[in-house]
Amino acid sequence: MRATFMYGAGDVRVVDVPDPTVQEPTDAIVRVVRACVCGSDLHPYHSMAAKPEGNSMGHEFVGVVEQTGREVTTVKSGDLVITPFAWSDGTCDFCREGLQTSCRHGGFWNANGVGGGQAEAVRVPLADGTLVAVPVEESSPLIPSLLTLSDVYGTGYHAAVKANVNPRTTVTVIGDGAVGLLAVLSAKGLGAERIILMGRHTVRTDLGREFGATDVVAERGDEGIARVRDLTGGDGTHVVLEAVGHMPAYEQAVGVVRDGGVISRVGVPQYEDAPVGFGSLFGRNITLTGGPAPARAYIETLLPGVLAGEIDPGKVFDSEVPLADVADGYRAMDQRTALKVLVKP
Amino acid sequence: MRATFMYGAGDVRVVDVPDPTVQEPTDAIVRVVRACVCGSDLHPYHSMAAKPEGNSMGHEFVGVVEQTGREVTTVKSGDLVITPFAWSDGTCDFCREGLQTSCRHGGFWNANGVGGGQAEAVRVPLADGTLVAVPVEESSPLIPSLLTLSDVYGTGYHAAVKANVNPRTTVTVIGDGAVGLLAVLSAKGLGAERIILMGRHTVRTDLGREFGATDVVAERGDEGIARVRDLTGGDGTHVVLEAVGHMPAYEQAVGVVRDGGVISRVGVPQYEDAPVGFGSLFGRNITLTGGPAPARAYIETLLPGVLAGEIDPGKVFDSEVPLADVADGYRAMDQRTALKVLVKP
Repeated sequence: MRATFMYGAGDVRVVDVPDPTVQEPTDAIVRVVRACVCGSDLHPYHSMAAKPEGNSMGHEFVGVVEQTGREVTTVKSGDLVITPFAWSDGTCDFCREGLQTSCRHGGFWNANGVGGGQAEAVRVPLADGTLVAVPVEESSPLIPSLLTLSDVYGTGYHAAVKANVNPRTTVTVIGDGAVGLLAVLSAKGLGAERIILMGRHTVRTDLGREFGATDVVAERGDEGIARVRDLTGGDGTHVVLEAVGHMPAYEQAVGVVRDGGVISRVGVPQYEDAPVGFGSLFGRNITLTGGPAPARAYIETLLPGVLAGEIDPGKVFDSEVPLADVADGYRAMDQRTALKVLVKP
Repeated sequence: MRATFMYGAGDVRVVDVPDPTVQEPTDAIVRVVRACVCGSDLHPYHSMAAKPEGNSMGHEFVGVVEQTGREVTTVKSGDLVITPFAWSDGTCDFCREGLQTSCRHGGFWNANGVGGGQAEAVRVPLADGTLVAVPVEESSPLIPSLLTLSDVYGTGYHAAVKANVNPRTTVTVIGDGAVGLLAVLSAKGLGAERIILMGRHTVRTDLGREFGATDVVAERGDEGIARVRDLTGGDGTHVVLEAVGHMPAYEQAVGVVRDGGVISRVGVPQYEDAPVGFGSLFGRNITLTGGPAPARAYIETLLPGVLAGEIDPGKVFDSEVPLADVADGYRAMDQRTALKVLVKP
């Protein structure tokens, strides 16, 4: 079959690899209906050292089950399934607590002999814990929205949940990528009435307004901080959802959060150390939270709104490429000519 | 009157200063009954640059109201009062939210023309918001326990509250100073059944056991982390209360916290940057919280247990010096021959 590999910064290719097969009785083989390129895929796209054998790519996909191991009971051949960006057993204490990204027997795509979603098919380990079957045809217009439940919608929601967004909290969202926009949608869904979106790409921030942003701040850095403070009587907002991952976004978050508030990060940090001392977080009793979203935990919660058509998170997809042209999708997202790119095998 | 000033590292003196007077109609003058030396006073004791005019010292005291400005209504001359370590108006939004350390009109002792508690008397601004009168004589044996409500008990409690300690959370407390021990007491009070105290001074950790610690780990660093992991099936604890403030304590906290857990800091950080990236906090969905305790917020909650004699947080005081000998108190705490020193004007 054909699958996407990255061989170094900027070097994405579709290559032939063996078809995935059932290896464990808990595996399922899923034919990919739609995958996509993630903002976090752009981090290695910018900085990956050359690697002759490459890394398989893609951690978001919906597909159709083609085959299941003998112990799989919750999905069967022909089911359309959503695949969260981590696989997990669904039964350990972490899974039961809703932290499937720390599952005792789980793991991530593109590692330890498990392939990636930007491919024709994928072997899904622990299929009972990982996959969620949905009563939808693969030709359904709901597919893009269902695909956001693999990662970006769950990730935006995770940011908001970890920050305890509610009708009494004012919110700033940093970043107008798919995760930032879906953090806006999530904050709105959790009842926030004031949502300030920091981003400077009008097409994106317009979608942010449609998703619930009440204010848009295009300025960055100190100017952006001053603008948010102006909008909030000088105080900043109770909650900041940081959906970028670079240090300037972190600094912006510290600058716009209200005393006693919460910075919730879901952009994968591209730094290890950051200011957390008296002058940044401690003195003002700021809480720092977030991490990789246990997307699996949120699918049941978010799915009904998608199936009912009440929300349309799939609007973050503004283009589609065939698998053969996946490199064009990376390029478009890197150059910001696309917000988020669907990949069709 | 006599008051304590620090003139540089290790240089603590009691000097003559003018008696405090009512300057604002919201002021009260409080004659100090007992003050004390704080672990956080040891930070400048170690590192303060020489300063000819010195800094006044002390932020914990109970006393008797001697005089009040004409607008003060909640306390009167003769009342015994507890003074939290920040003064606050009690009416602004931050105060109403229980974050008096961020009061819009408040401040801290030893700054902006307000003196410190290691003195014969103090001008207390915003007396109605700041002071809590208690029906106790100044000769009462309850005085040391009441004094802990100025700071160390409220601070230990703040750590536990910000981490949402409850009967389902396992807890590690890092530090066997007064705050650490009272974090143990607080965690116990909030229902925690497993409390691991990391400290190596047996006299202190014995008091920690009396306050509710179920395990004591004397080892530090990697060895201490391994020991806590051993005690918790390899996982670490849901909550870590960090009551030291130095980087090795932070690193220890990261090492012993369970995936998805909370590190709550109340030791004043002696660093600004710290690891918070994928390898430390983010990848495991660790929350970092804490800050200066709004001690005022917790006095009403914690006072009944103290007045009823159900708890005795005052046990953290193991020596007393007259004000004239306050330098001996600093020395004893610095050399760890005393856990916490009462100062009697």
